[in-house]
Amino acid sequence: MRKRHSLELKPIGIIHSSYKNRGKAPYQGYRSEKISEIEVFKEFEEGLKDIEGFSHIVVIFWFHKSRGYHLLVRTPWDDVLHGLFATRSPYRPCPLGLTIVELAAREENILKVKGLDAIDGTPLLDIKPYISSTDEKSVAKLGWLKGKLGKERS
Amino acid sequence: MRKRHSLELKPIGIIHSSYKNRGKAPYQGYRSEKISEIEVFKEFEEGLKDIEGFSHIVVIFWFHKSRGYHLLVRTPWDDVLHGLFATRSPYRPCPLGLTIVELAAREENILKVKGLDAIDGTPLLDIKPYISSTDEKSVAKLGWLKGKLGKERS
Repeated sequence: MRKRHSLELKPIGIIHSSYKNRGKAPYQGYRSEKISEIEVFKEFEEGLKDIEGFSHIVVIFWFHKSRGYHLLVRTPWDDVLHGLFATRSPYRPCPLGLTIVELAAREENILKVKGLDAIDGTPLLDIKPYISSTDEKSVAKLGWLKGKLGKERS
Repeated sequence: MRKRHSLELKPIGIIHSSYKNRGKAPYQGYRSEKISEIEVFKEFEEGLKDIEGFSHIVVIFWFHKSRGYHLLVRTPWDDVLHGLFATRSPYRPCPLGLTIVELAAREENILKVKGLDAIDGTPLLDIKPYISSTDEKSVAKLGWLKGKLGKERS
């Protein structure tokens, strides 16, 4: 087996949210109009210059409550086991979360965003501008999720 | 200052690409029809079950040639300094790359994809299904990049 070095990351901020734990966060952030606050640590604030021109941003964060993973998982949408990488489960070998959110406002090092499904206290790793010409794939096929979104079991 | 722990990641695979170094990779992967191969390590192969139903996947990788960063950066699109987080520069505090690619084929633990701008040997961190209802923001405002894409300096 190939040797695999560990890679090290340090958060650049923290997410403040009304979702206080995993059970409270929505399955899909897009259904929420709630505002979350992304606090970018002061030392990185200069890196936010011009971010307010973008209506949407890509937020990458650390699933800090995630512990371990299974390669086959059951989701809220059906009773079939699916491969982990064909789901958005937070329990992953690299526990990286990704949500594309609407940037509602910026106040210095604080970004107010809509549609972020991360729970309170989530470490922030990166922010990128959302660029529709590269990031939008409107014809995408949904695989096993086809016809199931919005119909999850409670 | 708040204490910030380091977070540790281990790659789940490696990207094989015809882009052998940074200068050879396109600014925007979407313009390329070239096929890259994503090798997911055998031990994670089961996690790929059902991935082939999705036409597009989100690929998160490690910018392994990235060294250091500046909070204000100049890009190929204009002469103005922009905040790092308002750009997709690979030189970031957390050197995480993100590209949404077309999944052309799967052969066991190998995914053949179109539109991946990562260079050869890039460590793979995560794969997620692209879900247009949450990931597509067709009305997104482009900020400082408006009218500039495709017009970069050579």
